[in-house]
Amino acid sequence: TLAPESAGPLGKAWVCVVLSGLMWKVRRFLEKAWGIGIDEPRKVIHCLKVGIALTTVSLFYYMRPLYQGVGGNAMWAVMTVVVLFEYTVGATLSKSFNRTTATFLAGSLGVGVNWVATQSGQKFQPVILGASVFLLASATTFSRFIPTIKARFDYGALIFILTFSLVSVSGYRVEKLLDMANQRLSTIVIGASMCLIISMLICPIWAGEELQLLVTRNMEKLANSLDACMAEYFNDCGNFAGDNDKDSHKVALGYRCVLNSKATEDSLANFARWEPAHGNFSFRHPWKQYLKVTASMRNCAYCIEALSGRINAETDQQAPDYIKKHLSNECLALSSISSSILRELAINIKSMRTSSTIHSSVEELNRAVEDIQSALKSLPNRLIPPHLPITKAPETEHRPSITSSIPLIEVLPLATVASLLIEIAARIQPLVNV
Amino acid sequence: TLAPESAGPLGKAWVCVVLSGLMWKVRRFLEKAWGIGIDEPRKVIHCLKVGIALTTVSLFYYMRPLYQGVGGNAMWAVMTVVVLFEYTVGATLSKSFNRTTATFLAGSLGVGVNWVATQSGQKFQPVILGASVFLLASATTFSRFIPTIKARFDYGALIFILTFSLVSVSGYRVEKLLDMANQRLSTIVIGASMCLIISMLICPIWAGEELQLLVTRNMEKLANSLDACMAEYFNDCGNFAGDNDKDSHKVALGYRCVLNSKATEDSLANFARWEPAHGNFSFRHPWKQYLKVTASMRNCAYCIEALSGRINAETDQQAPDYIKKHLSNECLALSSISSSILRELAINIKSMRTSSTIHSSVEELNRAVEDIQSALKSLPNRLIPPHLPITKAPETEHRPSITSSIPLIEVLPLATVASLLIEIAARIQPLVNV
Repeated sequence: TLAPESAGPLGKAWVCVVLSGLMWKVRRFLEKAWGIGIDEPRKVIHCLKVGIALTTVSLFYYMRPLYQGVGGNAMWAVMTVVVLFEYTVGATLSKSFNRTTATFLAGSLGVGVNWVATQSGQKFQPVILGASVFLLASATTFSRFIPTIKARFDYGALIFILTFSLVSVSGYRVEKLLDMANQRLSTIVIGASMCLIISMLICPIWAGEELQLLVTRNMEKLANSLDACMAEYFNDCGNFAGDNDKDSHKVALGYRCVLNSKATEDSLANFARWEPAHGNFSFRHPWKQYLKVTASMRNCAYCIEALSGRINAETDQQAPDYIKKHLSNECLALSSISSSILRELAINIKSMRTSSTIHSSVEELNRAVEDIQSALKSLPNRLIPPHLPITKAPETEHRPSITSSIPLIEVLPLATVASLLIEIAARIQPLVNV
Repeated sequence: TLAPESAGPLGKAWVCVVLSGLMWKVRRFLEKAWGIGIDEPRKVIHCLKVGIALTTVSLFYYMRPLYQGVGGNAMWAVMTVVVLFEYTVGATLSKSFNRTTATFLAGSLGVGVNWVATQSGQKFQPVILGASVFLLASATTFSRFIPTIKARFDYGALIFILTFSLVSVSGYRVEKLLDMANQRLSTIVIGASMCLIISMLICPIWAGEELQLLVTRNMEKLANSLDACMAEYFNDCGNFAGDNDKDSHKVALGYRCVLNSKATEDSLANFARWEPAHGNFSFRHPWKQYLKVTASMRNCAYCIEALSGRINAETDQQAPDYIKKHLSNECLALSSISSSILRELAINIKSMRTSSTIHSSVEELNRAVEDIQSALKSLPNRLIPPHLPITKAPETEHRPSITSSIPLIEVLPLATVASLLIEIAARIQPLVNV
């Protein structure tokens, strides 16, 4: 009887440890969730909207007197709301269209096949039904692998298979089927309209606006990232607004957001096409242009990645400071013009008009590229230590020692940075012309 | 009465044009689909499997004598099969787990809430039900924004909301609810097992194998891309197996596949964790390691992108051929060692063992890097035109003309290519150590 007593406190301690560990995990999870809520209040609003839509449709179903007209199929209205309510209006619209159209098409086809099966007698009925389900399910599943269908009608294809199998094997006679199909379609339309009304009237979140915001924010991140990289390289943090080294390093890695946001951009552009005119956006706003812009931005970001890799390389691969300072002005000038063009483009995209200064900025960019190229050209001359007077005849014997004091290998890291900057400038140009 | 007659042939012609246009579109669509089917026969197999699963479960539902035990809820079995059957076994498993667990949890919670609501009287019942639906729907929707939940339990959260709303507002008494919940859960389990059996027994497509295939294929593409880039740069197509210029250019752009496959890799790795042991893979295979490998691969690809941009730059930014040839041997050596290491790693990943030669290859890589660095160091000396004898005293007055004959700006493009190659080599090293 000693064991339980001694295990008592031990057991309690163990329970305490487990509980506090669990509490800590739950607390961290809640803190994380709270952080998301604070950072993006629109996500919280979306959640409340889902709650409102679902409660409305549920109570509509629950209040028996109201739903006599819709029948037991009202369950489909609840299901429709749960499945269709997406974050952006465009996504909800696209899913609603997919669901109603697919239900209608598959329902009609199912009724037709059912009629044919009934006519062909008791024996062939299951064969015809089974074969039609097999063929249509296989073909529709295959169509979901085709990229254009996958991007726009994936959900519709799923609902098509679902509705067709349900209708064609329901085993009811055609008259009853038509009645049922009619009811089901009407409940789906009710659910979808509910979703659309709530998602468009209460703080609407438009895919188009989200896309614009993402593009401009990423463009600013790219600009900040370029500035921070160059500031880091030339140890010249004065030019840059970062509070401390860690912050500025985080900003310097901002280009990564651009690298990783392709999937989001594609889906937002896809949903934006479904949205009606709103704010400054017309119905046929050229959303594909945004994708061209983001593709060019990603091209820039790849180059900034290479630049940042170069800059964070180990110190033995870095150019010595005395060489760096010979090009620092030109490099910083080029990078600051590049980043200011990016910022100007971001403002242009936000305001949806071309600023008058953008072309003069591009000219400035070209001049800065020329400057850096001529600076590179004259680099060997400039690197002659200034205390040696540059007169020709008496210095000839010193020359070899001078050229050997600036071996190519020492200039190379700086020259690579400069040429990456030139490449970045070249990749910014297509952005202006999109 | 002239108009209809003259419109006749015109109208017919118009119909013909429209029809032939439509036919052409349909034909192109079918050709595309056929192409996908030929390229990836496993996609066709998947479609047939979906057809089989759906036909089986539909006929099971249709054959009345069979489904007396499951009741009208058998519709849920059809729905489950349609929704759960995914391309890979892991995805099907993950969705099945999500669906059954979420249905069970939400069902139990719904029954509990329903009981509380019934106890609290006619007046408060709708209030309690509405409030619980609102709160749970909002909270669960919010949880779908949290990345860890989004990645693994997104579908479960959706089903949770759906089941909870359906159960809690169904308005049935608890006894009937329990009966219904039991039936629904059993039909879902039947549907899910059907999916799992068919997806695991008939030509299973494992997410793990797909991931491994994707990683090794991308790694080979990276190696080919690097080779093709360097061959293009040094106009040395003999080393490369491409049939013609267009082909080799396409191969050179192979790195793009690596840049764009992050989302696919993440989801495959996520699904692979659900899969049981199969083939050479154990249950707890370190799938996360694959993601580390692909992250390093992407790092390489960014650099190859910069290199390829450099190589495809306009000719005025290219180093002249007579300079190129001074480094071509070293560059080609480094790139071919780099690409052979990539190919070796691909074989290692395929066979899941570390080859004994990989470390000596890395040493070779380091030697090649040193070679290229010392070649860069000695570049100015090598570029002295060979017909000038290198004796010191009499040539001093020629020196300036020699240094000006190899201005830095002319060497720079080549030097940038070389330093990008060195960077690529540096980024291959972490791949070996993963």
